[in-house]
Amino acid sequence: PPSPLQPPGLPLGPCRAFSNNKVLVELDESSGVATMKFKSPPVNSLSLDFLTEFCISLEKLENDRACRGVIFTSAVPKIFSSGLDITEMCGKSTEHYAEFWRAVQEMWLRLYGSNMVTVSAVNGSSPAGGCLIALSCDYRIMVENPKFSIGLNEAQLGIVAPFWFKDTFVNVVGHRVAERSLQLGSLHPAPEAQRLGLVDELVPEEKLQEKAVAVMAQWLALPDHARQLTKSMMRKAVLDRLVAHREEDIQNFISFISKESIQKSLRMYMEMLKKKK
Amino acid sequence: PPSPLQPPGLPLGPCRAFSNNKVLVELDESSGVATMKFKSPPVNSLSLDFLTEFCISLEKLENDRACRGVIFTSAVPKIFSSGLDITEMCGKSTEHYAEFWRAVQEMWLRLYGSNMVTVSAVNGSSPAGGCLIALSCDYRIMVENPKFSIGLNEAQLGIVAPFWFKDTFVNVVGHRVAERSLQLGSLHPAPEAQRLGLVDELVPEEKLQEKAVAVMAQWLALPDHARQLTKSMMRKAVLDRLVAHREEDIQNFISFISKESIQKSLRMYMEMLKKKK
Amino acid sequence: PPSPLQPPGLPLGPCRAFSNNKVLVELDESSGVATMKFKSPPVNSLSLDFLTEFCISLEKLENDRACRGVIFTSAVPKIFSSGLDITEMCGKSTEHYAEFWRAVQEMWLRLYGSNMVTVSAVNGSSPAGGCLIALSCDYRIMVENPKFSIGLNEAQLGIVAPFWFKDTFVNVVGHRVAERSLQLGSLHPAPEAQRLGLVDELVPEEKLQEKAVAVMAQWLALPDHARQLTKSMMRKAVLDRLVAHREEDIQNFISFISKESIQKSLRMYMEMLKKKK
Repeated sequence: PPSPLQPPGLPLGPCRAFSNNKVLVELDESSGVATMKFKSPPVNSLSLDFLTEFCISLEKLENDRACRGVIFTSAVPKIFSSGLDITEMCGKSTEHYAEFWRAVQEMWLRLYGSNMVTVSAVNGSSPAGGCLIALSCDYRIMVENPKFSIGLNEAQLGIVAPFWFKDTFVNVVGHRVAERSLQLGSLHPAPEAQRLGLVDELVPEEKLQEKAVAVMAQWLALPDHARQLTKSMMRKAVLDRLVAHREEDIQNFISFISKESIQKSLRMYMEMLKKKK
Repeated sequence: PPSPLQPPGLPLGPCRAFSNNKVLVELDESSGVATMKFKSPPVNSLSLDFLTEFCISLEKLENDRACRGVIFTSAVPKIFSSGLDITEMCGKSTEHYAEFWRAVQEMWLRLYGSNMVTVSAVNGSSPAGGCLIALSCDYRIMVENPKFSIGLNEAQLGIVAPFWFKDTFVNVVGHRVAERSLQLGSLHPAPEAQRLGLVDELVPEEKLQEKAVAVMAQWLALPDHARQLTKSMMRKAVLDRLVAHREEDIQNFISFISKESIQKSLRMYMEMLKKKK
Repeated sequence: PPSPLQPPGLPLGPCRAFSNNKVLVELDESSGVATMKFKSPPVNSLSLDFLTEFCISLEKLENDRACRGVIFTSAVPKIFSSGLDITEMCGKSTEHYAEFWRAVQEMWLRLYGSNMVTVSAVNGSSPAGGCLIALSCDYRIMVENPKFSIGLNEAQLGIVAPFWFKDTFVNVVGHRVAERSLQLGSLHPAPEAQRLGLVDELVPEEKLQEKAVAVMAQWLALPDHARQLTKSMMRKAVLDRLVAHREEDIQNFISFISKESIQKSLRMYMEMLKKKK
């Protein structure tokens, strides 16, 4: 049955779609592949609303037997996702910080631990939390445009990537590249990101969708059960670590973000972003 | 003294040889280097008999003061080893599965933990358990023929590589390459295997033996005691993990392999192999 | 105020300098960058005196708010540091071995855990403990001369690199490269060291200082607090491991180094070095 959330005008039958305000999801039932498009202009920042919709959509797909894989991409030109929404971390209550951070954790736990095949089709820049989404997938394809960059640049903003961002990063690029990149808060242009192993391959923008579908088909050729157990074996240690320290991690975030020096850094950064416009 | 198992016709004196049905071992006493040749046609599959002979032979060499290093290679054209013998995992009793799995564990514990220098001269394809043998050595040389491939392709068969296969793989190629390769059940042609670090170098088939001997000489130039302690330091964590969970790992194997869905997958795979012939 | 240790003849004001017998330290107050030059001919070996002065100097800089980064380099031509001073490990008392080893640990704990940005400008060969100093920095630049080599070559001397040398090495080059290099006791010529990731870049000797200053400026562009917390997150597990086993590690060293076979190896090695001269 068509989803109650289905917007008018989208095809019925083989392709089901449901959309919230921040993400658009289309499921191709013939292939079992869903596409989740981030559509929260101007920069797909990960607000509490975005994260909530992301998690609900992902959970819906996870529980849908017709869906075996998800492609993540952006509906906003030139940006994949700008990462965590700084307005959620600035001048808010302790309760708000806790709720927001729990939503960030939830997104990662669901995505990094997903039973589905997950492919990022990175069609724009992808700093911080945007990079985390890509890192948490099974495969990363990026548009070969060197103006698009990707990385965990938190240190540039005077903040620190949490340990599970770091663990995810180390699992992809290894300890040394992660140590250097995290300390410098590097944003790597696409060609450099590929050299470092941060993305798996580069394609021209017009080939991105086609390549993502081809990669997905390759991964879906494997029996689900064996692939899922293998994925879990590779990722369990890192997932378990956050699960074991989840409340502690929330408290750490709150006490860090509540510091006046950090609040000041974030306000300055937001001012700078406003002036850029 | 010549081994009681020594076959007639082999040279006495500087070279001692002993052979069982499945492996042929020759020890060159002047260099201290043994060669273990897998000779269990058609594909050197790791049957219970093969594993038992492999372990007995390896233990004999390990305890022989005249032996400091072992080169593993195949006496069967085009195949190094096809990996675990599926007939041992199909339609057998729980007791048989336990005995078989214990023998697989034993092989790996002895080989990965060997005090001798171990070099694989991979002169043919080497999927699954065959790949594990190569990964467990100190050095891997492969014939540069792109028709020969190597990898832990268990996922292709609908089964899951055990955690200690995975740990060994990660120690060689790193987390990211292992995650992708294991989930896809990839068999990497020789040139790709070298690019990924899965094998250390490629040589033409006619140079393989010569190169293996040269590499062995390089490793044997080091004082044994320091090299052995260093090797143990690098591998102990991963070896200890299986030792600590050995019975649990056997039970996991039995309950997994006893599932009707897995038995059906394996039967289908064996049918496919029979039709290929 | 100028340091009481300041030698006569060095400029006052923007550049403070203090020198002991074994290292020369100059702090450029305008940039916040200190340079520590090893000046213990003939080979900058890490004697107890050297280690003590190294640690005192590093602690002084660590506590100096004017200092944010340190460049390590050699004032002795062709050698960065030859590593631990073998005369400290040969024919001495148990108490001396304990004191010496504690100083080696202290050097590494302070350097690997430093809050400052640390850059090695490797202007000569750098075996064993010399390599450890380089590995413990945030960034390694080496003169591109292939006659200069670097590596943890302990196995060549019949001794074993301690686990925390190994952990530091693995964090830089990964498990596989470390396993092979440590077992072979390899000294890698500069170009090979770069290919393996053991050093980050190579430059002509006359560009070394300039490059080190430029790299330092890039790292100092980041806010200290975020960078320090990030560095600590990456290194804490490995640092904590030695802290937790420090006394045990000293006892291990003493019992290993006190063995007659090891003493004999070291004496032979020293004889060989003397003949070389």
